[in-house]
Amino acid sequence: MVDVAIDEQRFRRRFDEFSDIGATEAGGVNRPSLSDENREARDTVVEWFREAGLEVRIDEMGNVFGRRTGERGDAAPVLFGSHIDSQYNGGRYDGVVGVLGGLEVVEALDDADVTTERPLEVVAWSNEEGVRFQPDMLGSGVFCGRFDLDYAYEREDKDGNTFGEELERIGYRGDEPCEPRDIHCYFEMHVEQGPFLEREDLPVAAVEGVFGFSWMNVTFEGQANHAGPTPMNTRRDAFVATADVTESVRRITATEGTDLVGTVGSVDVWPNAINVIPETVEFTIDFRSYDDGTVDAAVERIQREIAHAAEREGLDYEFEEIMRVDADPFDQDCIDTVVDAIEAVGCEYTRLVSGAGHDANYLNKIAPTSMIFVPSVDGVSHRESEFTEWEDVVTGTEVLLEAVRRKAAE
Amino acid sequence: MVDVAIDEQRFRRRFDEFSDIGATEAGGVNRPSLSDENREARDTVVEWFREAGLEVRIDEMGNVFGRRTGERGDAAPVLFGSHIDSQYNGGRYDGVVGVLGGLEVVEALDDADVTTERPLEVVAWSNEEGVRFQPDMLGSGVFCGRFDLDYAYEREDKDGNTFGEELERIGYRGDEPCEPRDIHCYFEMHVEQGPFLEREDLPVAAVEGVFGFSWMNVTFEGQANHAGPTPMNTRRDAFVATADVTESVRRITATEGTDLVGTVGSVDVWPNAINVIPETVEFTIDFRSYDDGTVDAAVERIQREIAHAAEREGLDYEFEEIMRVDADPFDQDCIDTVVDAIEAVGCEYTRLVSGAGHDANYLNKIAPTSMIFVPSVDGVSHRESEFTEWEDVVTGTEVLLEAVRRKAAE
Repeated sequence: MVDVAIDEQRFRRRFDEFSDIGATEAGGVNRPSLSDENREARDTVVEWFREAGLEVRIDEMGNVFGRRTGERGDAAPVLFGSHIDSQYNGGRYDGVVGVLGGLEVVEALDDADVTTERPLEVVAWSNEEGVRFQPDMLGSGVFCGRFDLDYAYEREDKDGNTFGEELERIGYRGDEPCEPRDIHCYFEMHVEQGPFLEREDLPVAAVEGVFGFSWMNVTFEGQANHAGPTPMNTRRDAFVATADVTESVRRITATEGTDLVGTVGSVDVWPNAINVIPETVEFTIDFRSYDDGTVDAAVERIQREIAHAAEREGLDYEFEEIMRVDADPFDQDCIDTVVDAIEAVGCEYTRLVSGAGHDANYLNKIAPTSMIFVPSVDGVSHRESEFTEWEDVVTGTEVLLEAVRRKAAE
Repeated sequence: MVDVAIDEQRFRRRFDEFSDIGATEAGGVNRPSLSDENREARDTVVEWFREAGLEVRIDEMGNVFGRRTGERGDAAPVLFGSHIDSQYNGGRYDGVVGVLGGLEVVEALDDADVTTERPLEVVAWSNEEGVRFQPDMLGSGVFCGRFDLDYAYEREDKDGNTFGEELERIGYRGDEPCEPRDIHCYFEMHVEQGPFLEREDLPVAAVEGVFGFSWMNVTFEGQANHAGPTPMNTRRDAFVATADVTESVRRITATEGTDLVGTVGSVDVWPNAINVIPETVEFTIDFRSYDDGTVDAAVERIQREIAHAAEREGLDYEFEEIMRVDADPFDQDCIDTVVDAIEAVGCEYTRLVSGAGHDANYLNKIAPTSMIFVPSVDGVSHRESEFTEWEDVVTGTEVLLEAVRRKAAE
């Protein structure tokens, strides 16, 4: 194949300019879905797509596509990209490297005057983070037929604004139907959001799939009595039971499968006063593994622990599994293509499974899919201090370019 | 001594009428300090005091005194009473039985045409609960010289209203100086707020003193990472450490002294999201015992547990003991008077130490003091379901009458 080279300076200049949109003092960005800052980020991407000669289309969910035609203009395109919405006070790299890296791929092809067989499309998905409108990955979810458009439009933020109204307000409710169409394959480059690559001092990983997970809500209900005159052996303390279950989550992850992770992330205590025994605690549990049987076993064990903790403390309890997603292996041919691309670029690498969900999960349901990870320094993500060495972003983009070219030649 | 008898019907009628003020649907009352409902309760007490021929005085803190003169009108009075402010959606008995019981004592003396040697004063202290304005026991605290008047006036509720403004608004900022004066002794009848009396099927207890306690604030600071891609062994989870410390609190109470109680009552988690490892947890610990050395030992042990939990999880932490109050034995002569009064009434009883603080704590600093407890069914307090059998309230009031007469004869 003709040599095609990434323009590191152009790519970096764009990334820095993009990082100014919704920039926070601590070095992150605040561009939650459909905010004014998200609109400005969208406007910038659309402008840059057009400057690069891409045909821009906005669909009914506000997903932004930039198309570069191929020798066979009617063939199913190779799609690649990620998202540009952020967490509240999130990091600069999450999502953005996949979209601006995708743009750099097509510009590098332009520089080398290379036209691929298949058309290419760079995409920026709407509402990946799910911090303002739940659920997350809403744009790719509708695109892949997982959610109805009406359901998506009706999602409300905490102020009661709907996704549909806010999409209209920022001018990104497009005409193109948001529905599954013929995609040759999908690639997504993303920051790892975990510590493996940095720990192994590797610049890039081929991603083989995504962890399955279970989300659970638990409510313990005891009795709020005065913390002074109530002897320990007559208490019905909802927080003591919560602490017991939290210890159990930690113990289960240590004894049930090697990749299992478990988190008690959200905890609300009532009445939450220094001198009153907690009457009610609502909390969440998150278990994840690449092995569905391991998640099953963990959920089954924690239910027994919850029942036992409630019985010990004399509590009533409610348990609900509010979400369950099976482990999701990516397409073997796409994984192999990423590995081949890495070897062509000539860098060391590893194979990883993603603990976090991505738009790629939904794309994997309708088209062959894989991902490329670049390192997250200290494993940090969803924070302003999120950081990836620029040379690793460039390496990841070179891999993306190689993978896209290989698939676009098919 | 002349026979003096409580009028159960009158007492009960008053109690029921009083329970209508700020009544909640669930059978409790909502009369937080200086609310309109608290004003109505005060107006009612003042009216009934006057109808009973008491000379009513309101001091600068809104403490309400009703004075019945004695043969020796210039002798230091016997003071008795409690409070009429409530928790938000609290119970009908807490505080009220001591004030209306005190009123019944003087009316019973009137019925029997008995004049005591010393003057008697019934008191309703301001702001005992401390739910709207902190700290609690503010009225008796200023009266006993523990707090400055200005400090008390500057206390703010969560809407920024000050105690001074609200006291003025409801018309209870009186002229009488609120400061220590010559009190012969103080008695307070109160619900136990614990399970001992009910468990032993006893109507009344002589209270020998009040537990000492320590209040601590702890902050753990870790790292908020994504709950999926972050392996267990790289986590810095502030809530796991909080669970560890909560287990330690329970273990310390089980192994350090027989009366020690310990509570983690208030817990705030940040960012408090189902899929994010908790970065920061702020929580409180409350240890109480009648033995100051036991509280010392518990505080020392929990500090080591906090340091160890922080080290295990790789957290920073802050520890602050925000309040420390020593155990407070009541006056032996007043305790003996209560015991003699119980024996004169002729009922079974026990001796208890109070796990909760009361206005009697502050009075004990300036005058000989003791308390009388009546049972709390199921040990419940600070809730709408708080309940005491009426016959026990009557028995407690008979004991109060006896104790007051004995001391007023000195």
